[in-house]
Formats: sequence, C-alpha cells, structure tokens
Amino acid sequence: MKAIGKLLRPSSVAIIGASADPSRMTGRPLGYLQKHGFSGAIYPVNPRVTEIAGLRCYPDIAALPEAPDAAIILLGADKVVAAVRDLSARGTAAAIVLAGGFAESGEQGGERQRMLKQAAGGMRLLGPNTIGLVNLTDRITLSATGALEISELHAGRISVISQSGGILGSLLSRAADRGIGLAKLVATGNEADLDSTDVLEDLLDDPSTEVVAMYLEGLRRPDRFRVVARQAAERGKPIVVFKVGRSEAGERSASSHTGALAGADSLYDALFRQLGVIRARSFSDLLDVPAALASGKRAAGKRVAVLTSTGGAGTLLADACGVAGFAVPPPDAATAEAISALLGEDEKAAASRNPVDVTLAGVKPEVFRGAITALLNSPSYDAVVTVVGASGLAQPDLVAGAVTDCAARSEKPLLVYVSPHAPQIVRLLNQRSVPAFAAPESCATVLEALQRRLLPPLPKPALAASAPADLPAGPLNEAESKALFAAFGVPAPREFTVPDAGRAAVAARDLGGRVVLKILSRQITHKSDVGGVRIGLTAQEVPAACADMLERVRAAGAPPPEGFLVSEMVRAEVEMILGFHRNPQLGPAILLGLGGVTAELFEDTALRLLPLGRADAEAMVGELRAAKLLAGYRGAPPCDLPALIDAVLAFAAMAEALGERLVEAEINPLFVGQAGAGVRAVDGVAVLRPVDIAIQLQQRGTNP
Amino acid sequence: MKAIGKLLRPSSVAIIGASADPSRMTGRPLGYLQKHGFSGAIYPVNPRVTEIAGLRCYPDIAALPEAPDAAIILLGADKVVAAVRDLSARGTAAAIVLAGGFAESGEQGGERQRMLKQAAGGMRLLGPNTIGLVNLTDRITLSATGALEISELHAGRISVISQSGGILGSLLSRAADRGIGLAKLVATGNEADLDSTDVLEDLLDDPSTEVVAMYLEGLRRPDRFRVVARQAAERGKPIVVFKVGRSEAGERSASSHTGALAGADSLYDALFRQLGVIRARSFSDLLDVPAALASGKRAAGKRVAVLTSTGGAGTLLADACGVAGFAVPPPDAATAEAISALLGEDEKAAASRNPVDVTLAGVKPEVFRGAITALLNSPSYDAVVTVVGASGLAQPDLVAGAVTDCAARSEKPLLVYVSPHAPQIVRLLNQRSVPAFAAPESCATVLEALQRRLLPPLPKPALAASAPADLPAGPLNEAESKALFAAFGVPAPREFTVPDAGRAAVAARDLGGRVVLKILSRQITHKSDVGGVRIGLTAQEVPAACADMLERVRAAGAPPPEGFLVSEMVRAEVEMILGFHRNPQLGPAILLGLGGVTAELFEDTALRLLPLGRADAEAMVGELRAAKLLAGYRGAPPCDLPALIDAVLAFAAMAEALGERLVEAEINPLFVGQAGAGVRAVDGVAVLRPVDIAIQLQQRGTNP
Repeated sequence: MKAIGKLLRPSSVAIIGASADPSRMTGRPLGYLQKHGFSGAIYPVNPRVTEIAGLRCYPDIAALPEAPDAAIILLGADKVVAAVRDLSARGTAAAIVLAGGFAESGEQGGERQRMLKQAAGGMRLLGPNTIGLVNLTDRITLSATGALEISELHAGRISVISQSGGILGSLLSRAADRGIGLAKLVATGNEADLDSTDVLEDLLDDPSTEVVAMYLEGLRRPDRFRVVARQAAERGKPIVVFKVGRSEAGERSASSHTGALAGADSLYDALFRQLGVIRARSFSDLLDVPAALASGKRAAGKRVAVLTSTGGAGTLLADACGVAGFAVPPPDAATAEAISALLGEDEKAAASRNPVDVTLAGVKPEVFRGAITALLNSPSYDAVVTVVGASGLAQPDLVAGAVTDCAARSEKPLLVYVSPHAPQIVRLLNQRSVPAFAAPESCATVLEALQRRLLPPLPKPALAASAPADLPAGPLNEAESKALFAAFGVPAPREFTVPDAGRAAVAARDLGGRVVLKILSRQITHKSDVGGVRIGLTAQEVPAACADMLERVRAAGAPPPEGFLVSEMVRAEVEMILGFHRNPQLGPAILLGLGGVTAELFEDTALRLLPLGRADAEAMVGELRAAKLLAGYRGAPPCDLPALIDAVLAFAAMAEALGERLVEAEINPLFVGQAGAGVRAVDGVAVLRPVDIAIQLQQRGTNP
Repeated sequence: MKAIGKLLRPSSVAIIGASADPSRMTGRPLGYLQKHGFSGAIYPVNPRVTEIAGLRCYPDIAALPEAPDAAIILLGADKVVAAVRDLSARGTAAAIVLAGGFAESGEQGGERQRMLKQAAGGMRLLGPNTIGLVNLTDRITLSATGALEISELHAGRISVISQSGGILGSLLSRAADRGIGLAKLVATGNEADLDSTDVLEDLLDDPSTEVVAMYLEGLRRPDRFRVVARQAAERGKPIVVFKVGRSEAGERSASSHTGALAGADSLYDALFRQLGVIRARSFSDLLDVPAALASGKRAAGKRVAVLTSTGGAGTLLADACGVAGFAVPPPDAATAEAISALLGEDEKAAASRNPVDVTLAGVKPEVFRGAITALLNSPSYDAVVTVVGASGLAQPDLVAGAVTDCAARSEKPLLVYVSPHAPQIVRLLNQRSVPAFAAPESCATVLEALQRRLLPPLPKPALAASAPADLPAGPLNEAESKALFAAFGVPAPREFTVPDAGRAAVAARDLGGRVVLKILSRQITHKSDVGGVRIGLTAQEVPAACADMLERVRAAGAPPPEGFLVSEMVRAEVEMILGFHRNPQLGPAILLGLGGVTAELFEDTALRLLPLGRADAEAMVGELRAAKLLAGYRGAPPCDLPALIDAVLAFAAMAEALGERLVEAEINPLFVGQAGAGVRAVDGVAVLRPVDIAIQLQQRGTNP
C-alpha cells in the first residue's frame, strides 16, 4: 500500500503529545478514535503519563512496540520537527502535523516548514496547520476537529478535500445534520508535502468515493491536477470545487491588456470548465451538488416537472428553475391522463399544468406515489422535483417512503424541496439517497450539475507546424507578428512591407483601390498615438501620408520606424480579439472576446488554458454574448464561424509550438467576415523571449 | 378601529365550520387559538356539535351571542358564500375565507369569487384561498397552518405579508427555528377584497412592526402600493420583497422594440428601486435581510471588518463580501494596536490583517470581547462580522454573551457567521437581536441591505409645459415626433421638412456641408428598409437622391411619403436609446439604454416608472454599464451627462403631459455629444391615441 493509503486507512496509529485530559485539544484525537470505533492499535506518546483511557502510553517514539502506519502529532510548532525526524527514523509511513506557525505565518515559519519537510525524509506528511483527516468508511478519525463530538457519523459516498481545517469541520457537521453521507475528509493545510491533488489521486482508487468535494484557496500543481481531474472524469467520479479568491481576481490580473481581462480566478474557472470540474458558486452548493451527484443519476436534458401540494412552493421552484435556464413545460397528454385518473373531479385541471399542484389530494399517499411515478415515467421530463409541504410534517416516514420507493424505480433524478423547516425530513431523505433541499435555488443549482456532461473531449496534440527559426527576441513589429500568425494559419489582409514612401505608393497601386498605411516599429506599441495609422488612402495620397507620419513620429520623440505596412482595406462583420498570456499560477492561456471598447466594457470574453481542443474553441465562442452577433444578429448575415474556430486553434497551436519563447501575443482586431469569407488578423503583436532563456525555462520544468 | 385592525386584533372570533376533531384541518384553528393563548371570546359554529374543547358550539351564525370582530370560515367553497352573507348581516367586521376553488381555478371559480365579494357587503374579506393570519404580538392565531404545531412562538418586530399560504407557513416555521421574532403574518390569497397593500398600510401603524417581509406574485394596485411604500420609507420601516415571476419576464414583454427589453419583472425591479423597497434575490434572503434590518442598525458605508478564530471561514466571508462590492481593509494603526495588546507575542501579526484571525486566542472570551469592541469602535469600519467556529459549540452562552454585550454598546451592525452546523447558537443570537447566519453569502447580502439608503427623494411634479394641441392620432412621422420631443426640451439636429426634391436641395444648401436626407412618413416604420435614409450627401446630390427614394418607396409598394427631412450631420460620442411604453400591469415606464445592436445584445438598459425625478434619472445612467462610456472611456472625452439627464427628465415630462394620449415613444438614436455639446434626437417616433379615447381612459382611472 502506498504511504497515503496507509495514512487514510492505518491499522496502527501513534498519537504524539496525547493528553490524558479529553477536554483539551490534545486529548481529543484519542477519544474520538475510541468513540467512533477505530479497530486498530492506538499508541499514545507522552513522557508524563503511563496510561490514557485504558491504553498504555509510551514515553517517546523510540519506545513504540512497532512502526505505526500513521502518526498524528499534537505538539507545538517548536517540538514538531524532532518528532517528525523520530517518526521517520522508526519507519512510520505518514504523519499528520496539526501545529500552525509554519509557512502561513511568515518567513521564519517558512524556514521551519522547510526543516520539517527535510526531517520527514521518506515519510509522507499531511499539514502542517491542518485539523487532520476523518475516514468515515472505516471509522478512523485522525483529527482534533470539534465536529467529531457528534455521536453518529453517517458514512456515504462523498469525500471531502479541504485546504482549511475549519471548513472540514463545518462540512462534517453540516453533512451530519443533513443526512449526507461522507466517505473520507482530509484537510491538507499548508501542504508541505501531500497536497490536495495527491489526496484526490488516492481517492480515485477508493471504492467508497463516488464524488469528491474540494475547498480550495489555490492549486500548488495545476498541471498534475489536470491529469488527475481528467482521470476522475474518465472514471465517472465528479469533482465539485468551491474556490475562494473570486474578489481578488482584479488584483492578480496581469499588466498587459489581455492579462487585465484575465485574472487568476477567471482562469481557474476556465481550468475547471476544461476538465469537467463543477464549480460551486455558494458555500452551500459544496454539499448540495455532491449530495445530488452521489445518487448516481443524471438528467438527460433541461425539462423539469414540479409536483406540489402547496402552490407557493411550486411557484418558487418553477421560478428558480426558469431563472437557471430550465424548461417547466406542461405534461404530455398521456402523462396528464395518468395524473388526472388519480384526482377527484374538481382537481383534474391540475393534471395538465406544471407545476402539478395536487393541493389536498397530494396529501393522500397513493396520489402522491402515482403522480411522482407518472412524471418520472413521462418522456416529457428529464427530472422531477417534488415539494414536501406542511402536511408532510406530521407523517415524515410516509412521505419519505413514497419518495424513496419511486426514486428507486427510476433512472431519472428525483429531488425534494422541503418547504417548512423540517430537518428531520431532509435528513431522512438524504440518508435514503434521495437528494432533499431546504432552498428552492439549491434544487435549480443541483439540476444544472446533474445535466452537465462531465467528460470533455481530450484536446488533440498541437499541429505539427513549427515556429519560424529566425524570429528576433522582444516585441515583433506588426508585419513580423502577422507573418508569425499566418505561418500557423491565421491569415492577414493582403499587404506589403516597404522601406519608404516611394515603394509604399507602388504597393498601394499594386493592391488597387483605397489602402491602409501604417508605420512598422518594434518599439512603438500604440501606433495610433503617434499618428502612425491612416485608412482609406488612394495610392496618390500615400507618399505624402508617409512623410507626414515620419514627421509626427519624430515630433513625438519616438524612434524612427523600420518601414511601412501597406494593406488592402478589409471589411468585418464582427471584430474580435484573440490573445495569449501567461498566468504565473496557472500557465499559458488563450482569450477570445468581442473586439474594441465594447469587449472591455461588457467583459465579453472567454478564457481557456493550453492545450486547447476544438470542443474548447467551440465552447469559447458559444459562451460569448457576441455569439449572437457571430450567428447573424437582427438580419445581419452569419459570420464565418468555422474560420474563427480554426483561428483560435491555430493561435493556440502557435503558442504551443513556441513554448517558452512566447511571452504574450494578441490579434486585435481579428476581422471575422461573412460565411465563407474567413478571418483576417488586421493588427497584432507578439512578444518573444531570447531562445537561450526560453530553453532554460523549458528545461526547468513545465509552466509557468 | 378600522375593520382590518379588528381582523388583526380581534377581541372575539367566530370559527365557522369548526370540527371537534383537532387532527382535522377544520379542527386546527380552535386548537391553535387556545394553545397559543388567545384571551378573547371564541365562538365555534357547527350544527352537528354542541361543545368543542370546553367551548359552547353554536348551530349557526344567527345564534351567536354577539357580532364577532372576526370570523374564520372553514367551509367548502360551495357553502362559503352563504356564511359570508350571514356574517355580514350580523355585523362582523371581517372574515377569513380559507377555501380554494375561486378565481385561481378558472372561470367558474371567478364567478363564485364575484358572488363572494358581493355577499360580503360592508364586511371586509381576507382570502379566499388563504391559510389565514397569525398575530404573534397578541398571541392571536386565525389560521390552519400546520406551522402552528410549534410549541413556542417567538414574537418580534418583523411582519410578513404573503400571497401564498404555504409560504406563510414556511416562513413561520423557518423563523421559529432561527430565533427570528415575527409580529404579524397575513396570507392574502386571492385578494378578493383585502390585498397585500391594504395589509401593508395597516402594519405601518402597528407599533410592533419595524420591518415588513412580503412574498409577492404580483401587485393588484401598484399605484396604491407606491403611496403606501413611500409612507413606509418615510417612517423608516423597511420593506423587503421576494417576488416570483423572474423567468416569465420574457413572455410578458410588450411587442414593441422598447417593450421587448422591458418585461414586467424588470419593471417590478424598477418600481422597488424607486420606492426604496429591498428586493430579496433568494428565498432565504426574505428572512435574513429583515432579521438584520430589525436590529435597527445601519452601516454608513462599505468597509467591513471580519473577526475569526478559524482561517477558512474568515476567508469565505471576506471573499463573499468582496464579491458583493465591500472593502475588507486592514485595521488602522490604533485599532491594530488595541487588538495586538490582547494577543500573545506569537499572535500579534494577526492584529494588522483583515480578516483578523485570532486563532486559538479567540477562544478566550476576553480576547473575543476586546477584539470585537476594538473593531466596532474603529473609524475604519462601517460594520463587523464575526465568526463562531467549532470552538464556540461547546460554550454557546459564552459566545452569545460576548457578542450580545458588544452589540448592545455600538451603533454599528455586528453580524455573526456560524461556521459549523449549530442551530442553537444561531437561534440564541437572533433571539438576542444579533443577526446570525449559516451562509457566508447571507452576511454579504445583508450588509448590502444595511448600507442601502431607503428613502429616495420624491420626484418633483412634471414640468408645466403642455403638449401641442394639434397632434394627429396614430404614429407621428419623424419630423412631427422630433418636434414633439423638442417642445419638451430634447432638441433635434438642425433640419428642415420639405415637400419635394427642389426644396430639399435648397434646404441642404442652407444647412451647408454634407447632409442627411430621409423620407417622411407616418406609415413607414422602418425607413431604411425602403431605402429612405441617405447620409453624407452634398446639396448637389440631394435632388437625385430624392428621386431615387421616391422610386424605391414606390417599388417597395409603400404609400407615398409626406415629404423629406433634410438634416445637418451630427456627431455622437455615444449613441443612446430613450423609450416610453405602457406596461399593462405597472403602467407607464421610461427606458434608457445604450443605442444600437449592442444595447440589445448586452441588455444594457435601465428602467423607471413614471413619475420620475432627477435622482431617478441620475440613477438610471449610473446603473448602465455604458456609464463608463459616457464618463469618457479609455481616453475618450467625457459626454454631456447633464444634458442626457435633462433629456430623460424632459422625455418623462412629455409622457406625463400627454397622459393617456401617448401610447409609445422612442428616441433612437439619441446622440450624446461631448461635455457642453448637448444631446440630439437623431431619429424617433411617437404614437398617439385620439383625444376622445384618451380622455375616456383618463377618466376611467389611473394607469394603465
């Protein structure tokens, strides 16, 4: 068994610094192990006591009768390093360090954490600054969390990984109240050694774990997380993440224009989306969504039936589902007939509506059962939500019985909304694997997760095209940048690079019609600011315009340009922006957005991390509000969507081929023409690193 | 006392159709009255029984010893009308009708409801199709809601008005669990007579009611609601509304372009905003927000201190506050010093951060008290949120004691987030008037409500300008429409109305430079579609363009235009749209949005109902994302905001002056120039009713 396996399922546990006083924090872990029925050997270590709670207490680690599978260290930060060294020397597989005062507390703590890691040698570490772990499947509690005061722990199929110990305790106690069964809970704390991805990896092999809920403040190894999350999706084990740091997105944004739109948090969003990881939007979703997923059922679409015996609650649910984009259509004729047959003459009208409000008739269990069954069997619905009203309070078993029976006989999700305060009904239903909720909005959120397809197609390897060998370092000028983009398949307008006014005029005549004239400069980032862009010029006007530009560049104190770019005039149906930047946490990313001022104002952008597949590129376009513009809005002709998607993929392939050489790149605007007319990179820039530095970075490891 | 007062606070109650079996729905109200301590006279009426629960039972209404203040009717729909007639005849002040089967069940039920109303005569009615009312202040329960099974009802300062009986029960039981005290709860049901606004009006005079929570499906008398809600704001009694129907907004949208952007739900949003009514976004907000408002404290700004002894929960809160637009700044030096003095040497670093994470030190009550006091006293914060972690579970009284004491000594809001599942702590705190929540997002939502200014300035009466007398009915042509807008103060570009090509050329020469030429037609809505708009013409080009237009109009089969409009070319910094339409539910409304395709795609519009004040117009501009464009985005010059706000007010004044004559109107585009350059109505249309019909409508009552 791997060390992390021994940590989660030890057959022997040493408790270093165990107290004989069960009310003290250091007294708790031993008490919890006994209380919750740990069946292995427990070795308390404390030089000042000889026995604790009927167990022999050892004076030090050397005195232990065997090398324990796992140890939990309750000592203060100053004594932990020595204990870790001793445990490692004894051959302990893994140890949990609860003490704080390490990397989270500043520089001195950081140094102490490095010493701790060193002292561990071949032994694995959980923490420091953790509350430990709880294995409910096997009734093993290696934790000091006060949440273990609960007498009854309901084991189930959801595992929790938390970077905060307090959150672990909070989820444990909230799940217990709600009747939501958990398998393993692991708080990773400072992650000096084992991190949340390591734990996730182990849990993929845990037969008791069907869903993983994660509380994250950030990922230490996003690349490894991608691999493991992908495996999770392949094995059908959904991951639900609540990640904090959403409001700091702005602060973390990179300095470039593209970067400014792409903070780390929105990149986490992109990462989760690409991996099929479900992001919980509120803290309560972090239990609600896994509870629904653990039922194993999935909704095939977005059509929901609502069954209620109390009108208001039915309306609440229908409205919440509608807001979340679900349809709440009336029953088909056969379904309506089946429900109608259950109802009295006065009540039959309810059978053809949705919500199906069976009012007083719904209180009769056979009507309730019959209506749920009819709705679950109906081809018109992908999921059913039923309401438990005040009338259900008096007979919780009756309601729970009907719902549980019906749920067991259908592959479709059946959710319950409990309208009055009735925790006993919520608990009973969840314990019987019927997801039950006290908030109408939770039902809608959960439905959204149940109809999500979790395994996105794997991006294909980047195109074989390799980067031109002779590219200079630093920012490329516009012509060089566009040549680079074109080499990978994003075409520029027809255009000529010329050294002077005379040849600019010749180029303009060759192009025919009116042209665009720009200065070429690696050093001038904003050409317009120095009068370096003119549009709609005739060939005759070009020489004077060139002279004027040179004069204005000189007047602005800018360095002389490398030459001029003369381009044909092209027409866009829609102007887009396509960008590449590197995020220090999550690595290289691609941004697609509506071009111009509007893109910024409405923040209509889509982000993905590299590597990028066709499905990702299509999804990027699809999640923009500009998708409607591209499809042909208000009578406008549709745009060349396939060409736009190819451009995104080509741009991504370029970034992959250049690897560490590419610092940032942007096509702005990218003109998208009508169907069949393709796209044109009308302006853009790429910034490159010198080859030798890029090679060093590449060798140092993967991104960033 | 008014009848509604007698209904809410009766000294005698008749129960029509009371059952002797307390387990039956018709047995409950009598049982609840006795159980919860009603001190007045109870008269059960049932011909088949002589005594119920120790009380004399009367065979019919005629046999009652006195006219009761209030009656609750538990009979089926078929017998209710007769009972209501009898009660009215006896001089009963008001009756509650529980039965369904009236207007909510179709046409036949609607007829029955009209009969019911008629039978009531001078007696007031609550319902039908209601669960009744509960007056916790005076321990009077006139209801069959199963929620009254609760043994202990905690009276408080929040009253509830619900259009659904089930929702009333749900809120009652949820509030009881949370320790949130309620004053009166009234379910208005079908509102055949008394509606939610009537009840609201009564509650404004109720000294026990400090906050009103309303569950609404729609307002029957929006005009009256405006008056009463305004009075509530003036008296400092906040109203919190949860309104369903958000997802049906689209369906209800009117057919015109402006209307399509303005569904009834978004108009409700506008209505609530104009009245200072707080709209609950989730169902749980409907209790959470009133619970916080009932403390009577308000936050002066958006700076929040978070105090925690568990890092994860502090981060959750800080993140939720940040997402909601609050600042979570570090403490000022004096505050940091005050907190630092409470902490051990190792812990002092925590004193200069926010969240203030006092870790283990926070478990000591004196540290907890000291830190809360320092943060509440700090000039750096407008509110404080403190976390109760797992360590607080063992000593709920200690935590509650500290928090309650500190809260009592400060004018600033102090909220509590309870991280583990601990309903007993939430309950204890709420009962002691310290708002406590189990969701971090609730704290942020509640803070948002606490810092909201509730009394918006009253709109001034419309400008005295009166409408031109000679306007035709139907759609006006562009020149007529713009003349109308200009009469009220929204100027058009310099332009001339001309009958033919010759005079169009003269007009173009008079204007000088290039001009815009358009056809004038009351019948052609989309001039561009028939080639009726040309821009950038020289005077020489005008005659040919006129001829061409006439030809194209003829070819399109459209009626001959009334003439031509020749206008100067004007430049916009930003193009807006300004519209007027009537909503069948809520009446006349003004829409302001960013012009063109973008406005539609991004739905960047603001709505307000008439009448409209300057503060409303300013708020409309402020809530647009386009506000940044108007302020001068990315180096662009700022726009003439005062002129835009004047234009909104002028347009609203026009709508008020025209009254029922105006069907709809739209300026699209409204060009907004640079600061000082004003605005121009570049195109637009107004549709008028014939004067005689408008007068009829005006006389029939107010809107719509």
